[in-house]
This record gives sequence, C-alpha cells and structure tokens, in this order.
Amino acid sequence: MPSRLKLVVAYDGAPFAGWQSQRNGQAVQDHLERAFRHILGGPVRVHGAGRTDAGVHALAQTAHVDLPDRSLDGSQWPAALNGTLSPSIRVLRCRYVTPAFHARFSAQGKLYRYRIWNDRILPPFEAGRAWHVSAPLQLEAMATEAQAFVGRHDFASFAANRGRPERETVRTIDAVQVRKNGHCLTIAFSGDGFLYRMVRLMVGALVRRGRGQGEAGEIRARLLDPTRALAAARFAAPAAGLFLIRVRY
Amino acid sequence: MPSRLKLVVAYDGAPFAGWQSQRNGQAVQDHLERAFRHILGGPVRVHGAGRTDAGVHALAQTAHVDLPDRSLDGSQWPAALNGTLSPSIRVLRCRYVTPAFHARFSAQGKLYRYRIWNDRILPPFEAGRAWHVSAPLQLEAMATEAQAFVGRHDFASFAANRGRPERETVRTIDAVQVRKNGHCLTIAFSGDGFLYRMVRLMVGALVRRGRGQGEAGEIRARLLDPTRALAAARFAAPAAGLFLIRVRY
Repeated sequence: MPSRLKLVVAYDGAPFAGWQSQRNGQAVQDHLERAFRHILGGPVRVHGAGRTDAGVHALAQTAHVDLPDRSLDGSQWPAALNGTLSPSIRVLRCRYVTPAFHARFSAQGKLYRYRIWNDRILPPFEAGRAWHVSAPLQLEAMATEAQAFVGRHDFASFAANRGRPERETVRTIDAVQVRKNGHCLTIAFSGDGFLYRMVRLMVGALVRRGRGQGEAGEIRARLLDPTRALAAARFAAPAAGLFLIRVRY
Repeated sequence: MPSRLKLVVAYDGAPFAGWQSQRNGQAVQDHLERAFRHILGGPVRVHGAGRTDAGVHALAQTAHVDLPDRSLDGSQWPAALNGTLSPSIRVLRCRYVTPAFHARFSAQGKLYRYRIWNDRILPPFEAGRAWHVSAPLQLEAMATEAQAFVGRHDFASFAANRGRPERETVRTIDAVQVRKNGHCLTIAFSGDGFLYRMVRLMVGALVRRGRGQGEAGEIRARLLDPTRALAAARFAAPAAGLFLIRVRY
C-alpha cells in the first residue's frame, strides 16, 4: 500500500539552483529525489509546499512523497536521507500522513523572514545570507510603511512575471514585523500565500522607503491601483537575504 | 619612505587553504597579497599574527604590510582591498603604525573560540562553522576539566608536530570558558600564545571528557608529564569549529 511521507527540510540555498527540479539536477528537489532513489532503488517525486528561487534559504520547507511501502519508520527517514545528502540540506523531521495531506494544497499559510545587513562592511559569515545595504536606513519609516501590506489586497504590482501572469493575485498578509538587532535588520512576513518574488519585491519597496526614496504612502497606492506602472519602484531585493521560516497547515 | 600598515581581517576559512601562503595560491595570505598587488602594481608581503589551518575562521586576524608610500589614507584601505577580495575575506580596519610594530612579534596574546553543535542534526547554516557532536556531552565535567589548562604549563602533549618539534612548549593560558546556548557549546581560550593545533587538541581532550571517556584529571596529568605517550587521548577537534577571535597587543 503506498504511503505518504511528510518531510520538513532546511537548506542553505547558496549552492543550489532553487527548490524546483532543474535540468542540471542542482535544485534542492533533485538532491532529495536522488537521496530517496539511492535508498529505495526506484524513482519518487518530491512535492514541495512552494518553490524557492536560487539562493533563497529555508529553515523549514515542507514536502511530501508517496512511497511504495513503509519499510522504514517515519522517524528513521531523516538519518537515512541525511546520510546521502549534502550538509547544506538537512531533513529535520518525517512522519507518515493520510493521502488527504498535500504539501502545497493543504498549506494554510507561510512565514518568511528577510535579513538586511546595514553596515559599511558585510562580515564574511553573512555573505550569501543577507542583503548588504551600506547606506543608512530609516527604520521607523520602514516599519510604518510596512503596515500598508497587512490585510487582504491585490498584490499584482508586487509579483514578478513567471512567463505567464498570475491568474489570482489577491492575498492576505497577517503581519509584517520590522526589527533591528545590531547591524542586522529583519523583516518578517506572515500570510496565506505569496506570489512569485512577492517578498523580495515588498522588501525592495521598504528599503526604497528606508533610504528616503519615493513618497510615504507609495505602497498603499500600489496596492489600491495594482496595474499602475511604477517601474522605478519595482525592485526585487536579492535572493540571499530571504528565508522560508515555516509552512502553516 | 616605506610605511607600515596594520590590518584587521575577518575570514570564513571554509573556502581557503588556511592563512599561510600556499603554492596553489588559495591561502588567505595569497588572496590579500594579490589584492595589494592589484592596487599597488607591485608585490608586497603580508605578515600575519599567526597561521590558521585550512577551514579555521577568523573574526579579527591581524597582519601588517610595508608599503612603498602612503598614497592612500589608512581609512581608505579597507574599501580598496575589499573591492577586489572574495566576500569570504573582509578587511575590517587599517591604520599606519611605527616600524616597531610587528603583527607576529608584538602580539601579547590571542583569544580563540571553538564551537560545537551538540544535537542530533547539524543545521545547514552551521556546516563548516561548528563541530557536529551528536552524542550527549556532560557540560559540567568539561567545564571543570577545562580549568586544568589555566596557568603556565608545558603544553608539549597538546601540540602537533609541524615537521620538527617545537623548541619552546611552555605557554600561559589566562582563562578557559565553557558555555552552552541552545544546542551550541562554545569553549573560549585566552592565552599568551598557542602551539600548532593546540586549541583543537585541548578541545579534543575536553570533548573526550564530556563523553565520559578517559578519567577526570587526565588533562592535569598530561600537563604534568608532557612527554607521556597517550595516543588514545591525543585527538584534534576538526578545523571547522575554530575561530580566531582577537589578537592582543
């Protein structure tokens, strides 16, 4: 009887071609599928809660696979998979779930965190793990402007085109928190779903505001009139600073 | 008039062949010398406070160079060098010093920190930056045993042979601190100088004790009788967990 296994996976995105399977085999999904194949002797498809771009990190991405049987206990899977995976990918937890569970379609929401290193020099240990912004940032202006994202809005002007336009661009953001700890500024976004590059485009807009560019209320205006062309304001923060923290079910 | 420039340098040791210049040109010293050459158009020799092995990190290694002139202010050097260096090496501060200053011979002491990740799974963001010890460690036993290192001792049995035996193996350790924060155990060593692989051999001995191997007092016995053969106890912790924190002048 086929069995559905749920996985919680952490990865340092720097060495990978993003989450979704690529022809070069260097996506996180490819690495996981090879690890399963190595253990099972046959192919399985890994279904993730969502794609992350090349260079984007995850503390707890969620995925599921359908296995031919339960030859291993759920608790045995992490060590088995980690034994063949790169140290940059770690399977943290596994358990069998009912076929009603689907990593992508059962997801109720996600939590992302974006890290900005706001100092003259980016420490070597932050390379690939934060966006280096050396210009001063007005934290209060960013925190205030960030609240414009909260609520149910049409985020079309905060989505990148992935070949075809998204059909449904209305999403609900529950909370945005802007915090600073030493030189590290973090912006946390919690919501029911995120469009392609949406977090990075939101962070780009907030940093623009933090640097005193554009006008207060610009984000609210873009949400109210999502088709308005604002090329100058459409700027995606780099992938390196973005962390998928958790998928909510 | 030649001018001596003092540099404070941080590096993530993972991609480098250690501090000291190597034939393959992949040591941190090689990278710094190439950066100076790129700016000055001629060769300079970078003198470090001490060597770090391949994979060992530094928050503040110190070095000096003799430059042909003062064409740049001290404060201009970090940006000039960082502009051509890998993001895994950052020059934090530079200033001109008198010829009496020598990065190695003027050093009064050093502070090292060793990081151990003591949990079932090593998070991907800790790969290369900590020693993964999944077996339980008895923190109190380690903290107690660590105090045996404090004071002036012959550390011959905590030194690796670098081709030839060290001539002078007496060193003074001012303090050793063992701390735990979540799953991360750190051991900080402050002393007037450290022999080759001395910190890693001291950490190896402490972890052996933390795992309940060997006997209490073993470290004291090795310090009192430094030539005693104790092959089983001589184990160097891996390079990845070691950080040079500061050089004291």
